[in-house]
Amino acid sequence: MPLPANNTGDAQVEPGSVRRSALEAAVEVEIQLTPQDVLALVSEPLQEVEKVFRRNLESEVPVIAEIGRYIAESGGKRIRPGLLLLASRACGYEGRRDILYGAVFEFIHTATLVHDDVIDEADCRRGRLSVNSRWGNTLTILMGDYLYIRSLGMALVGEDLGILNLISDITLKMIEGELMQTHAIGRLDVTEEQYMEIVTRKTARLFSGCCETASVLVERDDWRQPLKAYGHAIGVAYQMVDDMLDFTSEQEVLGKPVASDLKEGKLTLPVIDLLARRADLRPVVRHIIEQPEDCADAYALLVEALHREGSLSRARTMAREHADAARAAASMLPPSVYRDALVSLPDLLVSRQS
Amino acid sequence: MPLPANNTGDAQVEPGSVRRSALEAAVEVEIQLTPQDVLALVSEPLQEVEKVFRRNLESEVPVIAEIGRYIAESGGKRIRPGLLLLASRACGYEGRRDILYGAVFEFIHTATLVHDDVIDEADCRRGRLSVNSRWGNTLTILMGDYLYIRSLGMALVGEDLGILNLISDITLKMIEGELMQTHAIGRLDVTEEQYMEIVTRKTARLFSGCCETASVLVERDDWRQPLKAYGHAIGVAYQMVDDMLDFTSEQEVLGKPVASDLKEGKLTLPVIDLLARRADLRPVVRHIIEQPEDCADAYALLVEALHREGSLSRARTMAREHADAARAAASMLPPSVYRDALVSLPDLLVSRQS
Repeated sequence: MPLPANNTGDAQVEPGSVRRSALEAAVEVEIQLTPQDVLALVSEPLQEVEKVFRRNLESEVPVIAEIGRYIAESGGKRIRPGLLLLASRACGYEGRRDILYGAVFEFIHTATLVHDDVIDEADCRRGRLSVNSRWGNTLTILMGDYLYIRSLGMALVGEDLGILNLISDITLKMIEGELMQTHAIGRLDVTEEQYMEIVTRKTARLFSGCCETASVLVERDDWRQPLKAYGHAIGVAYQMVDDMLDFTSEQEVLGKPVASDLKEGKLTLPVIDLLARRADLRPVVRHIIEQPEDCADAYALLVEALHREGSLSRARTMAREHADAARAAASMLPPSVYRDALVSLPDLLVSRQS
Repeated sequence: MPLPANNTGDAQVEPGSVRRSALEAAVEVEIQLTPQDVLALVSEPLQEVEKVFRRNLESEVPVIAEIGRYIAESGGKRIRPGLLLLASRACGYEGRRDILYGAVFEFIHTATLVHDDVIDEADCRRGRLSVNSRWGNTLTILMGDYLYIRSLGMALVGEDLGILNLISDITLKMIEGELMQTHAIGRLDVTEEQYMEIVTRKTARLFSGCCETASVLVERDDWRQPLKAYGHAIGVAYQMVDDMLDFTSEQEVLGKPVASDLKEGKLTLPVIDLLARRADLRPVVRHIIEQPEDCADAYALLVEALHREGSLSRARTMAREHADAARAAASMLPPSVYRDALVSLPDLLVSRQS
C-alpha cells in the first residue's frame, strides 16, 4: 500500500521531507497506517536489499538458480531488513553496509522457512506452493543448507567479526529454538515460560540482531542495549500476533491454512493460556492435533472458548505490553523521522491482520 | 592400529625422532602401513581436535547434546583434520589454530553426512544406526543445520577472514555438489566429466581447503598452490577409492551396505566407464536402481562385468594417477617427517580396504 499522499498543500515543504510530512500528517489525523507504510520510509534502500537478496540467489548450478528465482518471486514482508534500515538511519548511519546485512538477515530468515516447511510438511507458503511441495524434500533440504551457508558468506563481505559473531550466534539460537519446539510437538503441558523461550530464540533474537547491528555500524555502544531491547520486544509482540492470527484470521488473508500451528502439534500462547484455565478442554485440543483433517467441530469449540475465556484478549494484551516496551526503548534514540517510525511500528504490527 | 615399534635397536636415536625412525623403517622394510599409522604422527594434536570437536557438540538444549554425544561416539577416520595437522606441521607451524580449524573441517564434514543420511534414507553409518533412523528426519535436519552453523561459529574464533572465506566458499561448493548429484540421481547418462565435477565439489575441495589452510597459518603464499593441488589430488583419489570399495568390499568392512551408491541411483566412475563400453548393460544397471531390494543376480552380473571389462582397474589407475599427482605436489615442501607423511599418504589411501 502506498504512503498516503501529502495533501497539506504546503508549498514550503523542503525536498526530501515529503515522506516525513506524510508520516506526521498521518499520525496527526490518525489515518490507520500499516507496517508497510512505515517501511516505505526506507523503500529505496529496501529495493537495494532486494537486489542483493536476488543476486545471492543466483547460482551456476541450474536447480539452485531455479529454486532461488521462485523464492525471490514469493516475496515476503521484509520486516527484518526494514527494521535494520530504520534503525541504522535512526543511528545516523550513512554507509551501505546496512543494505548488505539487511539482505543477510532476510536470507537467514528464508533458510529457516525453507527447512520449516520440510519439517512441517507444509503445502503452501505466502499463498503459493512451498518449495518442498514443488521440488521435494531432498532438494529443499539442500537448498536450505545452501541459503544458510550463503548468508554467512554474504555477511563475510562486511568484514566485521563482531557482526559475524552476532549473526552466527543468532542463527544457532534460532536452530536451537526450532529443535526445542520440535521436541515439544504434540505435548499439551507446554508452559508459558517454554513458549517465551522458543519465541525468543525463533523470532525475537533475529529481530534484536537486526536492530543491534545498527548500533555496531555507527560504533555507538550506548545505543546497543536499547536497540537490542527494542528488537527483542517488537519480535516477541510480532510472533504473539502471528500466533493469534493463526486462530482469528482466514486462509485467504494468511496465505496458509488457519490453526496450522496447532494442527502440527505446536501449542501457542492462546491455547497454553486456555488449557491452564480449562484442563477439561484438553481432549478437544488433543483431537485437533490427532485428527487435523477432521476437526471442524472441535476447532469451532476451541475458537469459541479462546474468545469466551479471554485467552485471545490476554494474548493480545501481552503483545501490546511488549509493543509498549519496544516503543519505550526506541524513545531513547535521538529524535528523527526514523526514530518516530521505529516508535510507531510496534503498534502497527500488533494491529495487523496478516 | 599403533605405529610399528622401532626395532632397529639403535641406541643413538635422538629423543623425538622415534616416530620418524619408525616410519622410515617401515618404509624401508616395506611393512604395509595404513593411513592411520601415518596419522599417528599427529596423534596428540588429533586428540586435541577431538576435544574441540566434542566440546562443540555440547549444548544446553538436551536433544542436541544427546545427538551430539552419539555423533562423537560414532568416531570417523578424522582424515581431514589429520591432513590439516600434517600440512601445518610440514609448513613449520607451531601455533594452535590448526587444531581449531581441524575441528571445523571435521564438523562441516559431519554436517554433510548427517543431511546426506536423511536424503539417502540411510539406515546405518559407521556400523551404527544413522542419526535419522534413530531420531527421525525432523530432528536430524535441524541437527545438520546446527552443525553447519556451529562450524562457522567455531571458525570465527580463529579471527581470520581469509580462512573464513575459504571455509564458507568450500561449504557452499559442497552443497552445490550435493545438489548436482541429487539432480543426477537415476540418470544413466552421467559422464566422467560430470562425475569429476561432483567429486571435486563434494570431496576434493574440503581436502584441499584443509591443506591450503596450513599455508595461510604460516603466511606462505608460495606454498598455497602446491598444498591446494595436493589436497585436491588426494581428495579425488580418496573418493574414487571410496566409490570402488562400494563394489569390491563387504558390508562388515564398510560399515554400510555394498553398492549403496548405485542402489540410490548414483552412478560412480566404474559404472560410468562400464556403460560407456557396454551400453547393452544399461538394463542391468537400471534394474539395480529400480529394484535395490531384489537385485542379487543383476548385481552379481554387474560386478563380474566391472572386473572383466577392466572398469574397476581403470578406476584404480585413475585413483593412482591422482595419488601420484598428490605425491609430486607434496614433494615441493621442505623436507621433514611431516612432508614424508604427506608424500606417503596418497598411496596408503588408494590401497585401503575400508
